[in-house]
Amino acid sequence: MQRILCLIFALIASTAVLGDPLPSWRDTENRKVIMDFVQRVTDPEHEDFVKASERIAVFDNDGTLWAEQPFYFQGLFAFDRIREMAPDHPDWAEQTSFKAVIEHDIPSIKAMKKETLLDLALTAHGDLNTDQFSEVVTHWLAVARHPTTGRAYTDMVYQPMLELLEYLRSQGFKTFIVSGGGTGFIRTFSEPVYGIPPEQVVGSSVQAKYRSNNGQPFLEKVPQLWFINDGPGKPVGIHQHIGRRPLLAVGNSDGDFEMLEWTSARQGPSLSILIHHDDDQREWAYDKNSGVGRLNRGLGEAADRGWLLVSMKQDWNRIFPQR
Amino acid sequence: MQRILCLIFALIASTAVLGDPLPSWRDTENRKVIMDFVQRVTDPEHEDFVKASERIAVFDNDGTLWAEQPFYFQGLFAFDRIREMAPDHPDWAEQTSFKAVIEHDIPSIKAMKKETLLDLALTAHGDLNTDQFSEVVTHWLAVARHPTTGRAYTDMVYQPMLELLEYLRSQGFKTFIVSGGGTGFIRTFSEPVYGIPPEQVVGSSVQAKYRSNNGQPFLEKVPQLWFINDGPGKPVGIHQHIGRRPLLAVGNSDGDFEMLEWTSARQGPSLSILIHHDDDQREWAYDKNSGVGRLNRGLGEAADRGWLLVSMKQDWNRIFPQR
Repeated sequence: MQRILCLIFALIASTAVLGDPLPSWRDTENRKVIMDFVQRVTDPEHEDFVKASERIAVFDNDGTLWAEQPFYFQGLFAFDRIREMAPDHPDWAEQTSFKAVIEHDIPSIKAMKKETLLDLALTAHGDLNTDQFSEVVTHWLAVARHPTTGRAYTDMVYQPMLELLEYLRSQGFKTFIVSGGGTGFIRTFSEPVYGIPPEQVVGSSVQAKYRSNNGQPFLEKVPQLWFINDGPGKPVGIHQHIGRRPLLAVGNSDGDFEMLEWTSARQGPSLSILIHHDDDQREWAYDKNSGVGRLNRGLGEAADRGWLLVSMKQDWNRIFPQR
Repeated sequence: MQRILCLIFALIASTAVLGDPLPSWRDTENRKVIMDFVQRVTDPEHEDFVKASERIAVFDNDGTLWAEQPFYFQGLFAFDRIREMAPDHPDWAEQTSFKAVIEHDIPSIKAMKKETLLDLALTAHGDLNTDQFSEVVTHWLAVARHPTTGRAYTDMVYQPMLELLEYLRSQGFKTFIVSGGGTGFIRTFSEPVYGIPPEQVVGSSVQAKYRSNNGQPFLEKVPQLWFINDGPGKPVGIHQHIGRRPLLAVGNSDGDFEMLEWTSARQGPSLSILIHHDDDQREWAYDKNSGVGRLNRGLGEAADRGWLLVSMKQDWNRIFPQR
């Protein structure tokens, strides 16, 4: 008898909690496709049923879970940090790339080669042990404000994506971030902001070295790349870290192309989603020609590949969380 | 009312399930220390309480979760695979290291330099894509038998450790394997055998490359090392993969020394455990002078460092699961 009462109670509770799991998604075809997919793979009676342990959902971060304009937020962090470090490095004033950063010259920064940006990033991210680095990022996220919206960066996450993450988890999915951004950077806020624990963050990273100071061990961040989790690196990162093929993948740029391709090539059901930044009123509108978050190949091939192209303008009734 | 009945039912159920969570552990001081530790960190009223998300438990694999004599089981797999590949490589018969493997010359193999063994391992582990590799390992584990016990290798896991893993998970811990062995190798059996999903296996690995064959993407295993998760590499692997300091760590050899040191240096409570192979009747007895799973520094420093030294002979009433 208690068992039956428990079951009834559990049913009432789960229905009440669910209600509409995606209130910031308009009642469009895309929303329907997402919810139908989740219902199919979680229904033990359906031929597309996938057991819970295989329900791996991977999300890009920049431009997918939070905004990325006028420049990747981690880049803005790195530039702030370089300006902070600059007084100890008078020689930087003579170097074009450092000079552009010190003088807040965003157009020059955007025109930089990838290698130059990488060098800047390595300079800004090395020189600390892993605990110190987390503290520096946590402090920056607490005090820094976005140059045009004035919001904290962690308030510039997409409300519809927060709801999608929570909805998937409520349906037995395990949610991962698979980002070109730095693993250590994202981990400082992934759990409180996205509900994704540090061990489910797969990103780019520098090497680390185990060292000791008077018997106190620490991990030194070595300013040398260990792994770039971008483009064809994303399926590799997924393999090395997760070891299973995703059931669902969400990205927004050509850096996510291979991750979506890899997900779509899964045997059995899968869902690949691209977020299209087409709302210049509430966010930004950019795709083929953007220096940040370029979406060109994905935009052209999404329809043929059966990938969902989500329009921020049409599919979402709200972009950012209410403050 | 339903809520109260549910609570009562949940309490009865959990007590019934728990019973004695460690039936294969004798009633010794070591068992008491482990259970006291778990009770302290899970008791919200205790000053040592640790919230569930921080309850990370890491386990070495070879010699900690399963046996490793007469040689690391993954090595035995690699040697079997080299013998299988040998007919296509007639030149191997001329090379000392391959010759030793082909002729089952275990003493020569044990006397090999690390670099030589690594070359053999890379040869045996490359040359396949990641899906093919999983199939080859799964097949091997199904048919191969241990040379002296005649058991399947996955039956040579330690029953007391299976119970400890399950007990920790029942108390809100997240259990990880942190092994010098290959991530892809261990992942083929970690979930059915240990209850540890692939994404919670941190090991050594070769590089992988995203490739495509007639539009079908695959991940090629490149026979080049990506990461060696051993010794000082273990805290690095823990950092890169998990991103949190473990609360509890279990190992059995000096390759686990830094992992235990890193765990012990955690702020707040922690427990570091070494499994001592001292039972030559039911398993094997080896430590300071062993070529496999050498335990020298750890044995000397365990007491001073407050690490638990578990005696297989005295603390365990059973070694392997009943078949």
